[in-house]
Amino acid sequence: MTRIAVYPGTFDPVTYGHLDVIKRMSSLFDKVYVAVAHSGEKSPLFSLTERVDMMTQAVSEYDNVHVEDFEGLVVDYAIKKSAKVVVRGLRMISDFEYEFQMALTNRKLNTRIETVFMMPNESYSYLSSKLIKEVARLGADISPFVPENVVRKISEKYKQ
Amino acid sequence: MTRIAVYPGTFDPVTYGHLDVIKRMSSLFDKVYVAVAHSGEKSPLFSLTERVDMMTQAVSEYDNVHVEDFEGLVVDYAIKKSAKVVVRGLRMISDFEYEFQMALTNRKLNTRIETVFMMPNESYSYLSSKLIKEVARLGADISPFVPENVVRKISEKYKQ
Amino acid sequence: MTRIAVYPGTFDPVTYGHLDVIKRMSSLFDKVYVAVAHSGEKSPLFSLTERVDMMTQAVSEYDNVHVEDFEGLVVDYAIKKSAKVVVRGLRMISDFEYEFQMALTNRKLNTRIETVFMMPNESYSYLSSKLIKEVARLGADISPFVPENVVRKISEKYKQ
Amino acid sequence: MTRIAVYPGTFDPVTYGHLDVIKRMSSLFDKVYVAVAHSGEKSPLFSLTERVDMMTQAVSEYDNVHVEDFEGLVVDYAIKKSAKVVVRGLRMISDFEYEFQMALTNRKLNTRIETVFMMPNESYSYLSSKLIKEVARLGADISPFVPENVVRKISEKYKQ
Amino acid sequence: MTRIAVYPGTFDPVTYGHLDVIKRMSSLFDKVYVAVAHSGEKSPLFSLTERVDMMTQAVSEYDNVHVEDFEGLVVDYAIKKSAKVVVRGLRMISDFEYEFQMALTNRKLNTRIETVFMMPNESYSYLSSKLIKEVARLGADISPFVPENVVRKISEKYKQ
Amino acid sequence: MTRIAVYPGTFDPVTYGHLDVIKRMSSLFDKVYVAVAHSGEKSPLFSLTERVDMMTQAVSEYDNVHVEDFEGLVVDYAIKKSAKVVVRGLRMISDFEYEFQMALTNRKLNTRIETVFMMPNESYSYLSSKLIKEVARLGADISPFVPENVVRKISEKYKQ
Repeated sequence: MTRIAVYPGTFDPVTYGHLDVIKRMSSLFDKVYVAVAHSGEKSPLFSLTERVDMMTQAVSEYDNVHVEDFEGLVVDYAIKKSAKVVVRGLRMISDFEYEFQMALTNRKLNTRIETVFMMPNESYSYLSSKLIKEVARLGADISPFVPENVVRKISEKYKQ
Repeated sequence: MTRIAVYPGTFDPVTYGHLDVIKRMSSLFDKVYVAVAHSGEKSPLFSLTERVDMMTQAVSEYDNVHVEDFEGLVVDYAIKKSAKVVVRGLRMISDFEYEFQMALTNRKLNTRIETVFMMPNESYSYLSSKLIKEVARLGADISPFVPENVVRKISEKYKQ
Repeated sequence: MTRIAVYPGTFDPVTYGHLDVIKRMSSLFDKVYVAVAHSGEKSPLFSLTERVDMMTQAVSEYDNVHVEDFEGLVVDYAIKKSAKVVVRGLRMISDFEYEFQMALTNRKLNTRIETVFMMPNESYSYLSSKLIKEVARLGADISPFVPENVVRKISEKYKQ
Repeated sequence: MTRIAVYPGTFDPVTYGHLDVIKRMSSLFDKVYVAVAHSGEKSPLFSLTERVDMMTQAVSEYDNVHVEDFEGLVVDYAIKKSAKVVVRGLRMISDFEYEFQMALTNRKLNTRIETVFMMPNESYSYLSSKLIKEVARLGADISPFVPENVVRKISEKYKQ
Repeated sequence: MTRIAVYPGTFDPVTYGHLDVIKRMSSLFDKVYVAVAHSGEKSPLFSLTERVDMMTQAVSEYDNVHVEDFEGLVVDYAIKKSAKVVVRGLRMISDFEYEFQMALTNRKLNTRIETVFMMPNESYSYLSSKLIKEVARLGADISPFVPENVVRKISEKYKQ
Repeated sequence: MTRIAVYPGTFDPVTYGHLDVIKRMSSLFDKVYVAVAHSGEKSPLFSLTERVDMMTQAVSEYDNVHVEDFEGLVVDYAIKKSAKVVVRGLRMISDFEYEFQMALTNRKLNTRIETVFMMPNESYSYLSSKLIKEVARLGADISPFVPENVVRKISEKYKQ
């Protein structure tokens, strides 16, 4: 039986925290789909294409990790991919509350999909895409937080 | 002495979690006012009239529950209704923090009004109007979360 | 209809935080039973009789407040007193979690008893019987935290 | 590749919450070891043998679930069983904090073992072995919380 | 050695909670810079000049407290002022999580700047600039929460 | 003016998390007193002398850090040492709640003593003396968590 897992998110942009979770997933599952959300209502800094591209470059070393964009419900996407598991990273309490609500709502929408939670390395426990964009906009060097290609893309955005 | 309580909220839209709290209030108090807020700054999915209508239909079985819209401070509304108690539902930690701030601020504004907290059934502890709208927009069947008339209204909204 | 509420606890010893909740209950309900628990497994500093006595003196000004000891389940005690409501004070997050578990467990044991939560004045939000005993043992003046009769009783305990 | 997971705990006694997690694990992994801890320092209500027996009866319907006692570090036990995953149930915030510490400590002790978190059904989110024993001791009917064989065992304990 | 500390914030508007922290800082440090942020992305109720002015009036009694606006990273501003310490007020859990992220991010950006946390008086623990603006807009008397000059400024805003 | 700070705790035993806080204090204050508590009611694994000795060795590199045992109230000890500041490390939410209560209680006992909170490096955010003792007892190598002299002392304890 092939174990397939989905890792959904906005990834605006991908951080070392996300990549740490993906590395762990890559060794636990046969196949991993990183599912980049359209995020219709929020307006992300990076376009969907940019977010998929940055993620694709960042995970190129993992043979069993595939990056795709998706629209609609995570549970529907998981079914389409024959995945039984949705993985979410847990860093802090505030994550936990929202994730709890989301996981229980998803379970109601489709009982065959199980949400499991994994923890990134504690060095990344405080990383937040939002905060990284905020300090980047103010001129900070964000290379400790995100991969090199993302550093370049962000600095282009804020130069414009 | 008639015990009167106010249950204020945006109710955008009413969920089974809200209705569970109202059912409990209905049996504890002589009269319950469900106070639907104008919510001037946020922009709700449903108009004030729609929110009052959906709630009115949803609570029609309780003789001692009255639905009204209100503007201004909750404590002023409570005084006008001769209520001594404002009820708020508590589901999770994040609720708790905001509710704590709100309750203490309200107490400062009017010491005669007491805020008391009630818990919905644990089956509804994860329900959030925001999340329900989000998954409805993405095509989910939300009938496990909200009454039938709300299901219809939401699907109309997102069809447009 | 007479509105009766139960306020259960160990009260080892009663603090100004407890008394603040009782004052609020006294004005919201027709009759209030302060139910002092035997607390079979924990070993309290004060005997059951001492705890009932200290509480009785502390609430003497409220005509509709009665102090009793009780053994067994809170929900059974509430039924015996014809109370529909059990009140618990909520101060902080850690309270909230335990109270949440307790309230949902009690609801399962008897659906006719409702737990409602009230907040003491923010000046008492940090008061803890445990901390008060700890600092009293180390020689602190605890008169800002507990009534005069409790100050005397505690200093007797720690002199022995 | 056989996917093996360990579910460690004291299980004093097993509750419907634990069983809900085990059911979910049984469908996600090829083999599940429920590892009942000796718990040297705490003194459990039930002996190790009793706890293993109660659990064994409770999971008899799952062919791929094995119950064993274990002593020592969870990560060492997992290695011995060729498991790469330790599963822990997450119910509330207080769980989360302790589990976070435990998971990060375990990861330091052995980087090859990954802790993943799963959520029981929300109907069991408030169940606590400790609270169940407490209300059982006070005479409550605990059949909504634990399997029938556990109900019998607990009532024997408290009769003695 | 002169001990210099920075207290950064949006202060939209300054509350008695902020002032309580500043009073404590004034007695612990030789020099205190209250750094009012431009807050480029959020749109504050008061202009930068208004926020600096309100704060300047509110802290006029403290000789060693200086109010300035600042743009860019807090750590850069601190370096410019020869400060080794950034102070943040901690009131509640939700503060704590965000502050934790911010402090660890800042430490990564500049290891020479230390963030320390102080607690306002418990009477101000529930004060939130956001909530105060909300109730002011609805007509509340906010003189228990903010200094007199701020009361006047807010009521002008909402009259317009 | 000499800035003196007290860092109180049980330190049973000292961890790299404590040492990280002490290093930060050493650079912020002129003089630091690490105050090892007698902890009359809890029964620590290490004797007071052992805990003072382990700490003294661990901080020998800092000229301005002094280790002493103390009995009684922290605020009284601080006054005796002419310290205006008590420092506490904050790692997680559960810390925060207890620390909040303790700090506000101490402030009531002596308004001249200010509690400030500092955060250890995120690599140590999950370290807990209790958990370290637990895994050491079960045979774990705890050298990533505590200094070498503590590793030796603990392994002696558990060999006996």
